Amino acid sequence: MPVTLYDRDGHRCLMFTDLGHVPGTDGHADEAVQSNQFLIVDGDTGAIIDPGGNLAYSELYLGMTRHFPPQRLAAILASHADPDIIASLDRWTTSTQAKIYVSAVWERFIPHFCKPGKTIGRIVPIPDPGMRIRIGRSDLIALPAHFLHAEGNFQFYDPVSRILFSGDLGVSLVGGQAAQQPVTNLAKLLPSMEKFHRRYMVSNKILRLWADMISTLPISMIVPQHGAPLMDDAVPQFIAWARGLACGVDLMGAENYKVPA
Amino acid sequence: MPVTLYDRDGHRCLMFTDLGHVPGTDGHADEAVQSNQFLIVDGDTGAIIDPGGNLAYSELYLGMTRHFPPQRLAAILASHADPDIIASLDRWTTSTQAKIYVSAVWERFIPHFCKPGKTIGRIVPIPDPGMRIRIGRSDLIALPAHFLHAEGNFQFYDPVSRILFSGDLGVSLVGGQAAQQPVTNLAKLLPSMEKFHRRYMVSNKILRLWADMISTLPISMIVPQHGAPLMDDAVPQFIAWARGLACGVDLMGAENYKVPA
Repeated sequence: MPVTLYDRDGHRCLMFTDLGHVPGTDGHADEAVQSNQFLIVDGDTGAIIDPGGNLAYSELYLGMTRHFPPQRLAAILASHADPDIIASLDRWTTSTQAKIYVSAVWERFIPHFCKPGKTIGRIVPIPDPGMRIRIGRSDLIALPAHFLHAEGNFQFYDPVSRILFSGDLGVSLVGGQAAQQPVTNLAKLLPSMEKFHRRYMVSNKILRLWADMISTLPISMIVPQHGAPLMDDAVPQFIAWARGLACGVDLMGAENYKVPA
Repeated sequence: MPVTLYDRDGHRCLMFTDLGHVPGTDGHADEAVQSNQFLIVDGDTGAIIDPGGNLAYSELYLGMTRHFPPQRLAAILASHADPDIIASLDRWTTSTQAKIYVSAVWERFIPHFCKPGKTIGRIVPIPDPGMRIRIGRSDLIALPAHFLHAEGNFQFYDPVSRILFSGDLGVSLVGGQAAQQPVTNLAKLLPSMEKFHRRYMVSNKILRLWADMISTLPISMIVPQHGAPLMDDAVPQFIAWARGLACGVDLMGAENYKVPA
């Protein structure tokens, strides 16, 4: 069952946290990292944000058809081109007529997910400065979030719900159950966030540029693509924490680039 | 037809440059970026480096079976987890028993390429310092190349042929025909290299660390995943050029992180 993040006046934001999980070889950890998929409904149309891989496709598609028929899907938005984000692309291009919005940086890479010819005329490249994407009565805003982590990367801000769909920024590596519970105090989540952000985020310079941009917007929730949503105090706490974090290339040195013996 | 990069004493390095191309909507540009796939043969076994997406699968599989039967494929090596690198993973896990070597950073992301359960017990995570991977009578060496471009990224060095399979570093955006011709003078290729490297490579700091590491190895060719191989003078010319290149986060500033109007 999806989590309802927002539901007012025919505008809904739904989060799917638990699709396609398969136990790993040790019987405990999942084979694949837990991922969230998002369905934005506005009246009789809507959008999907980061539809996920082949593990998630069938249930997300069914979940969508409870709100509107597949031909009413207005857009598929991909924050970047990793497999947990958009490896199900071949199926979505078959089952809907929606355009696929993805960074221009990845426009000619994502056809490799598909059978030949499947993406022709279907991809809308998002230029580096971002863009507004009409969904029903309002716009979703693609905010530049390059190098957080992917080189071409966007977050999606919904001005109606004031939710920031933050992609891989704000991720906590927890299970599908824990991902359903919004967190109001960042301290609780930091142990499952820090290692990921230090390795996958690219540099503190970029985190500071992002924090400056995002502080100009009213934000009710930061909802990442893995793990739990952040709300209330956890929103400014996360922005402050990210602003101060050394990560990625900041932490690399000559000892990390040696020929293995 | 693949290009033979090396063939001596039962050790062969073959490059496929032209698999799965589909004309784009303008009738000129391809829908998908041109990509190279590599087959390393050693006696009656071998490895595939960066098998590519669903566009490339069938022809590469057929090409492999001309040299050894599918059950003799020892390893599938992925420099990172982009779709043009490894989106065909689901098919390769079905048609061979080979282990898949990929950065530990992506170990739990690549199962999203596949149907549930397909990758259990099949993935060998390459640790950040790299490793040696036995293929027949010799090792392929996974060299750390993180942030060039992906956060978890490896190049593969073959000590027998002295070829460096450099992934996205050294890429030139040319067609499949041009990709078949090794280039001996870098100046000829720079117009089709520079824009890509400035946007997709992450920082000059990392390029310098890479240049220091790679200068300790004898290299006959640098063979990227898109475009033409570099040989002779072009090898040291490329290393020197990369060492001096500003790119990625070096070039980003506040003007790149603004809410779109």
